Amino acid sequence: MSADHARPQQHEEDLGDQTQQEQSAYRDELAVQLDSFLAVQSEAMSGVSRDVAPLMDAITGLVTGGKRLRALLCYWGWRGAGGSRLGREAVQAGVALELFQGAALIHDDIIDRSDIRRGGPSVHRRFGQLHRDRGWALDEERFGQAAAILTGDLCLSFSEEAFTAIGPAAASGTAARRIFNTMRAEVMAGQYLDILEEVAGPSRPRGEAVAAAANVIRYKSAKYSTEHPLGIGGALAGADATLLAAYSRFSLPLGEAFQLRDDVLGVFGDPQTTGKPAGDDLREGKRTVLVAFALERATAQGGALLERSLGRQDLGDDDVERLRGVISESGALAATEDLIEGLSGRAFDALDDLHLPVDVRAALRSLGLSAVQRAA
Amino acid sequence: MSADHARPQQHEEDLGDQTQQEQSAYRDELAVQLDSFLAVQSEAMSGVSRDVAPLMDAITGLVTGGKRLRALLCYWGWRGAGGSRLGREAVQAGVALELFQGAALIHDDIIDRSDIRRGGPSVHRRFGQLHRDRGWALDEERFGQAAAILTGDLCLSFSEEAFTAIGPAAASGTAARRIFNTMRAEVMAGQYLDILEEVAGPSRPRGEAVAAAANVIRYKSAKYSTEHPLGIGGALAGADATLLAAYSRFSLPLGEAFQLRDDVLGVFGDPQTTGKPAGDDLREGKRTVLVAFALERATAQGGALLERSLGRQDLGDDDVERLRGVISESGALAATEDLIEGLSGRAFDALDDLHLPVDVRAALRSLGLSAVQRAA
Repeated sequence: MSADHARPQQHEEDLGDQTQQEQSAYRDELAVQLDSFLAVQSEAMSGVSRDVAPLMDAITGLVTGGKRLRALLCYWGWRGAGGSRLGREAVQAGVALELFQGAALIHDDIIDRSDIRRGGPSVHRRFGQLHRDRGWALDEERFGQAAAILTGDLCLSFSEEAFTAIGPAAASGTAARRIFNTMRAEVMAGQYLDILEEVAGPSRPRGEAVAAAANVIRYKSAKYSTEHPLGIGGALAGADATLLAAYSRFSLPLGEAFQLRDDVLGVFGDPQTTGKPAGDDLREGKRTVLVAFALERATAQGGALLERSLGRQDLGDDDVERLRGVISESGALAATEDLIEGLSGRAFDALDDLHLPVDVRAALRSLGLSAVQRAA
Repeated sequence: MSADHARPQQHEEDLGDQTQQEQSAYRDELAVQLDSFLAVQSEAMSGVSRDVAPLMDAITGLVTGGKRLRALLCYWGWRGAGGSRLGREAVQAGVALELFQGAALIHDDIIDRSDIRRGGPSVHRRFGQLHRDRGWALDEERFGQAAAILTGDLCLSFSEEAFTAIGPAAASGTAARRIFNTMRAEVMAGQYLDILEEVAGPSRPRGEAVAAAANVIRYKSAKYSTEHPLGIGGALAGADATLLAAYSRFSLPLGEAFQLRDDVLGVFGDPQTTGKPAGDDLREGKRTVLVAFALERATAQGGALLERSLGRQDLGDDDVERLRGVISESGALAATEDLIEGLSGRAFDALDDLHLPVDVRAALRSLGLSAVQRAA
């Protein structure tokens, strides 16, 4: 879920002019509706106290950025199932998905102790800074975390409010609502499996690490980032079970490749491009598929060094460089790249098999490529 | 919002047999529906991984206890507006409110560093214990907090899922949905004002402390614990704006008195009865109305001691005893009790003015008395 630190970087060159224009128009309308939703909320909040403005500022600042991957998948899922151009439901669902992603990132950053998000300070750091600037009493870090927990809760409530505002197409009992509910529960379960691997992984047999990491990826990221947004869009436009299943054959391997790319960037990414410190995932002790491959395949010495280093907050650049060497020389990097290629291949083959209007297929291909080939 | 540590303690003696039976039947049906909702969720979660069972166990353990104040207010609000005996919508709304309260408590306990909740370990402590029992790697406390953040998020999503399952009466655009949305946003804003007072309070003029504390109470607790649950029940049964306003004239002062009682218990409560360490609110640095009165009225020496001690985690029983003396001798305790009495009086007068069936009025009076006269 942490794969969200960069400015938009779409492979839009392959899109026809009209499709590009439509995607831009959707982005614009999404931004307008997000702004308008947040303006209404800020107005209501100011009735409570002007002191709560920083919560709204933090949410607004966060959801203004981002690649909009989930909203765009939702939109093209809607269009592929016969939804109208810039249909209100698809815009509103995009607003809900972006707010949900905002909420998830706020809490994720507390959990992962991330200082940076989308090029600025993470929300708990923002509140820590506010505490410092005002010279308030007691502990800055605790205040920052507490305020960020509440801001994330508020943003999570907003996402649901926005989803409900879609109206009858997302009412109780609809397919879209069912997918939305499943998405929320699964991503939280997946996030838990992720932190569980950090602490329980070291005592598990190394041979189980890859399978455990793959399960984390599926729930924490693939289903959430690609499969469910696409499915929600489709369901809102009335897609039947056959079309939704065909969407999944494309979007699930795509999402897995997307997260594997994120894991590679978490270790080998360039801080200038990712906006995050080099090797952040190692410091956090993330037991990704990449790391699991390395534990499986490294020399005894390399494996021991890696095992010893995972989760150490004090890893310096030299340590990170050495660990990169271990991972790379073990063949784990190549194995992960192979996996990304295999999954992407399956995803794009499945896309080719989908009976979709040409422009929708091109848009989904472009989004897919940007998800797996990105450098940030 | 922390006022939820005790077993049910209702003033049911004033209720007629039939009303008591109806309230019991509602409680039972609420428990059945909560269990059934959580069983379905647990089943779905076990499809992700059996490792996520502790999240569901934590939620189930938490929402099984509690006084059910919010659900019961919702129910009698429903009945007072003409809703049917044990109506499905009112039960389902109760499920949503209890789950929302569960989510709020999970995150509240992280923020307030509370170790105990409803007689057992708080959720972050549960996960810390799990970490220790299993001998997992890295930091127990961090794992506990991270897992509790995710468990709270999951529970918050569940509450919304349960609310949406009410159906058309709670659909987008309805009064019930509007109150539910307002409730969520206000309680989070109120919680933020609460932690803000802890850090910003010391640098504010003492004369402003009572007003600031009163605003915290209104949003963090009164609107959330009493006004909105009652309003949601009424709105689901089709209450008009006049009835909802009349409900508020009863429930808002009642909720304020309820929270003031909680604040008194947070300093003067008996640990045997409250299930919390003596003087916990002082250690946490809570700037309640009680504390604000004391800061305003204490001797220079007493005020300085209080100011110096608020938020100190290492306060011993002797320190707490000394601070109780300062607060009591300043007249702050008496002033707070006066306030509780005045607010309760206003609430019960407003209840008398309400045109309600005799049994509904009796039930609301009984709930109100249990909220303001409790010892835990």
